[in-house]
Amino acid sequence: MKLYLAGPEVFLPDAVAVGRQKLALCRAFGFTGLYALETEEVAPRDAPGIYQTCLAMMRQADAAIANLTPFRGSGADPGTAMEVGFLVARGKPVWAYSNVAATLEDRVRADAGARLTRERDGGWRDQDGLAIEPFGLAENLMLACATKLPIVVHDAPAAARYRDLTAFRTCLEHARAALLD
Amino acid sequence: MKLYLAGPEVFLPDAVAVGRQKLALCRAFGFTGLYALETEEVAPRDAPGIYQTCLAMMRQADAAIANLTPFRGSGADPGTAMEVGFLVARGKPVWAYSNVAATLEDRVRADAGARLTRERDGGWRDQDGLAIEPFGLAENLMLACATKLPIVVHDAPAAARYRDLTAFRTCLEHARAALLD
Repeated sequence: MKLYLAGPEVFLPDAVAVGRQKLALCRAFGFTGLYALETEEVAPRDAPGIYQTCLAMMRQADAAIANLTPFRGSGADPGTAMEVGFLVARGKPVWAYSNVAATLEDRVRADAGARLTRERDGGWRDQDGLAIEPFGLAENLMLACATKLPIVVHDAPAAARYRDLTAFRTCLEHARAALLD
Repeated sequence: MKLYLAGPEVFLPDAVAVGRQKLALCRAFGFTGLYALETEEVAPRDAPGIYQTCLAMMRQADAAIANLTPFRGSGADPGTAMEVGFLVARGKPVWAYSNVAATLEDRVRADAGARLTRERDGGWRDQDGLAIEPFGLAENLMLACATKLPIVVHDAPAAARYRDLTAFRTCLEHARAALLD
């Protein structure tokens, strides 16, 4: 069983090392992991080439684990989010995790700070007047409902936010129980 | 021809009015638009219900236009990004636009400010040490390569960032030329 590994850790300086840790954990759980930087030496360096490499890996995968840890803002990496949609549309189960435990609503409210406003119906709006999803989910509902519920969360220290594999390991346990046991 | 309309304008206080403007423009270009809040009166208010409504509309659509304007951070709304992946995986052409004209690289560099660092190979890293995609694209390559190139950009005034339809109209022109002419 092949698991596609999606997440913004591909942008870390030690992205290859983190990927190898993830691949080793996949093996320990009985899976073959597919990670975008696994074959960095031969990987294309242009955008369309990387895109086609990722698409080919997603098509080949039986399932996936997506890292939805907030990335350069209050929500998940849009590239990872795109991949979740792609995988789900092709019928592949996706487990997801975040290394920040606060709900999306709490994160956006915290980011808005004093600029937060409240509607008559009790709903909150951010500094741009945009409604904040009130569902108590870890991410936008299009991600939270697409992936196996609930998204596994774990409060990693800030310095390990994109490297901590505690929640990733929990996703592997869930995937093994669903696909291999 | 049915066009699914994806974007974070669904979070605006006047989301229904903005959606109706988009639907009217779709009609003017010969398309039937599908917009998540079109039937707000009967729409489900729970997350799984909204998710299933959006999925049903995406399955019904022949193509889509996605609003990838930066949302609560340097990148596109993750919910919209998920939808782009879903649509592309099902073979639907997606045109995309952003109401911020700066490239992803320029936006992330500006957000990082003095905390920006430079690699020996000339690449930039943000305040968390995460690599900044150097491709001169408007968005993460998984979005920019999934959608019709290039993403249409237009610098809307900040107050109209999620309402301006200039770039949306350009996407409609491109979609009409590809699908109807």
